[in-house]
Amino acid sequence: MAERFEIVEKALLKMLEEKKYAGLRDILLVMNPSDIAELFYGLEEQRIPLLFRLLPKNKAAETFVEMEPDAQELLIRSFSDNELKEIVDELYVDDAADLVEEMPANVVKRILRQADPEMRRSINQILRYPENSAGSIMTTEYVTLRPNMTVEEAILRIRRQGVDKETIYTCYVTHDRTLVGLVTVKDLLLAQDDEMRISEIMLTNLISVTTHTDQEEVARMFSKYNFLALPVVDGENRMVGIVTFDDAMDVIEEEATEDMEIMGGMLPSEKTYLKSSAFELFKNRIPWLMLLMVSATFTGLIITAFEGALAAQVALTAFIPMLMGTGGNSGSQSSVTVIRALSLDELEAGDVLQVLWKELRTAILCGMALAVVCFAKIWLVDRMLFGNSDVTLMVDLVVCLALAVTVVVAKIVGCLLPIGAKVLKLDPAVMASPFITTIVDALSLLVYFLFAKSLLGV
Amino acid sequence: MAERFEIVEKALLKMLEEKKYAGLRDILLVMNPSDIAELFYGLEEQRIPLLFRLLPKNKAAETFVEMEPDAQELLIRSFSDNELKEIVDELYVDDAADLVEEMPANVVKRILRQADPEMRRSINQILRYPENSAGSIMTTEYVTLRPNMTVEEAILRIRRQGVDKETIYTCYVTHDRTLVGLVTVKDLLLAQDDEMRISEIMLTNLISVTTHTDQEEVARMFSKYNFLALPVVDGENRMVGIVTFDDAMDVIEEEATEDMEIMGGMLPSEKTYLKSSAFELFKNRIPWLMLLMVSATFTGLIITAFEGALAAQVALTAFIPMLMGTGGNSGSQSSVTVIRALSLDELEAGDVLQVLWKELRTAILCGMALAVVCFAKIWLVDRMLFGNSDVTLMVDLVVCLALAVTVVVAKIVGCLLPIGAKVLKLDPAVMASPFITTIVDALSLLVYFLFAKSLLGV
Repeated sequence: MAERFEIVEKALLKMLEEKKYAGLRDILLVMNPSDIAELFYGLEEQRIPLLFRLLPKNKAAETFVEMEPDAQELLIRSFSDNELKEIVDELYVDDAADLVEEMPANVVKRILRQADPEMRRSINQILRYPENSAGSIMTTEYVTLRPNMTVEEAILRIRRQGVDKETIYTCYVTHDRTLVGLVTVKDLLLAQDDEMRISEIMLTNLISVTTHTDQEEVARMFSKYNFLALPVVDGENRMVGIVTFDDAMDVIEEEATEDMEIMGGMLPSEKTYLKSSAFELFKNRIPWLMLLMVSATFTGLIITAFEGALAAQVALTAFIPMLMGTGGNSGSQSSVTVIRALSLDELEAGDVLQVLWKELRTAILCGMALAVVCFAKIWLVDRMLFGNSDVTLMVDLVVCLALAVTVVVAKIVGCLLPIGAKVLKLDPAVMASPFITTIVDALSLLVYFLFAKSLLGV
Repeated sequence: MAERFEIVEKALLKMLEEKKYAGLRDILLVMNPSDIAELFYGLEEQRIPLLFRLLPKNKAAETFVEMEPDAQELLIRSFSDNELKEIVDELYVDDAADLVEEMPANVVKRILRQADPEMRRSINQILRYPENSAGSIMTTEYVTLRPNMTVEEAILRIRRQGVDKETIYTCYVTHDRTLVGLVTVKDLLLAQDDEMRISEIMLTNLISVTTHTDQEEVARMFSKYNFLALPVVDGENRMVGIVTFDDAMDVIEEEATEDMEIMGGMLPSEKTYLKSSAFELFKNRIPWLMLLMVSATFTGLIITAFEGALAAQVALTAFIPMLMGTGGNSGSQSSVTVIRALSLDELEAGDVLQVLWKELRTAILCGMALAVVCFAKIWLVDRMLFGNSDVTLMVDLVVCLALAVTVVVAKIVGCLLPIGAKVLKLDPAVMASPFITTIVDALSLLVYFLFAKSLLGV
């Protein structure tokens, strides 16, 4: 699929170079706007306006929406006022709002000047809602019906108004601007009688969100209820917009990316990887690295405190990385699982005892299995194969006991910290591997040295 | 939102207990099937069939689909043949296929016996496609139109056939079973003239997938093109089914969960966290723990090889956890970012040089910043505050140089391994933190001891 597209891409760029504009236009006519937008990516700057002007009128706006902000800005600067107006008029309000959010102030002014008053009002309304709220991703273009309309009148209204609406398939029934019901086009088409009133066939057990609902919760509702669109109301239950499934899909992907970034010990990024500069990556990555490096002072202190023990039994040092590594991995397994379950609403803070009991049993199984294999491995490989006579039976025993206890401690810490974060209204994803590893490192060293002290008497 | 639902839930379960069935039925009448399904979760087993029989007929099947497999199985066993037939007849084919996949063999036999022959054929067809393929998530219930129909005839056909179809909003135009175009209900409703032929208004630049396309690629296409549904064709371009946006949304979430699990060093799980037994969690987690523990033999060997150096400069041991930890965190930052970008198709294996150059510059920035702060911290905290006289200026220098080099090495390894996995057609997510940490642990120790040997002469 992807390879086939690259072949087409190369051919088209060659046609552009060779000025075969007529042929190029014919092909653009049947291409999908998302695919056309990809053509612009990597195109030399001076060719961007040229290729864009070749687009059929009805595809220009849709393609524009799918383009990268850099290319959009370049195009807007090269547009005449008339050209800009043509594009802006064709945009859906939520796309126009996205655009305005991305552009520098002087470009924004030009866009708003070209937008018609109604569009300008809608854009401003959306821009005033907090970032990541339902208000910020909604569109104000939806079909409204009145309760006393007949099915036939409703269909007629959709036919008249539908062209400019982002979705016509779910229509909202309002009374004095208050949301009272919804009707799908399917209901309308399948209605037995064209003279039935909307109030008779509309659904009244509505699920709606407010403008301030977090976009993550909105997305979660889409994946739970399989809606095409979700109505957004203000504090007085007055209908102000809709969120459509395609925006919810984007949110689901964004939120998963954000969780992964946080779990990897980074600040969430605004841009895609290839668009981020090395300095931006540095800024997102250095805070956690710095914090975790400094907090590793504790592990250093523990080792310094037991320096005597390590000097007396030199073999003990060699197993430190294995112990800390296995502890860290065990802890991050639990934390990743719990964090994901929390973010999918499969788990709540109230389930903490159930989680603890499950993790405890899992940890004991893992700890025992690892300890047994580790015991055999140390004896067979380190002692017999490599002939390291410092590795006595007692040393082997200390390592494996410490390993088993470390795994249990790590899994308990790994499952409790994300739930604790949730209770404190923090993002559980912060409590992922890097954070937990630092804590588990210190704990595993303590366990190790305590076993060494009591069993080896060092 | 969630809390409000819990209050309703408690009230309803109380009504069930007190046998206020009439009132309960009235409330169920206006509730959403997904929410009703949640009522069953945690209900005592003997009450499940009781509550289910209170459901209005038109909601029973939809609610059934949303329920947990355990409760579904329990219900099917308690159903009479007639009751089972009523439910099965109402199911969409893809939901029925999901059900058949989850149930034990004797229950499956009963379901297939009650399904009408057409449904049975469709279920069997879907079940034959490989897991995670477009064929396995598609439904065979969609509206087909002929190219020579008029708009009016098409609308009539939708009105007649639409009730049983999973979506009516995108209709597929076929000729001799071959897919030749698509028409949306919006196009039909907004068509200027009811006498126009479908062939005149249909879209012919179709994007379709084959039954064997991976579901991840299918989901990716949904989030790229914002489709409501995507047609699925067989090897001869004959239309065999559609995938709808709600299934794609589930796939996006599933795939993100799977990636996180793999990145956390686990085998992907089939069940949600609370439904998994401790033994199942153990089975998913132990393979990577075992592998990584055994491969930590290398770090042990490196330490053993440099035992003399550590004995000569006891202060060196204390910084091992900090070095390995920072290296591991640096590496996992890069690998997580690259893995996610690869899985979102923002990055391809061909971009490797660009990635390498970006990571190299980021790593040098991170490495330098960390080394400077670390140098000051060691001198101020370990030397001056804790008065550890073993920590000489040279030891401090060795630690910080090793730290800077380790960060660079870790980030290079972290970005290259996932891309390498992609080239080898492996899942890049396997190359995440746990795997990379083990490699970086060994490399950071080597770097550390080499600096120690050359600068401290130990």
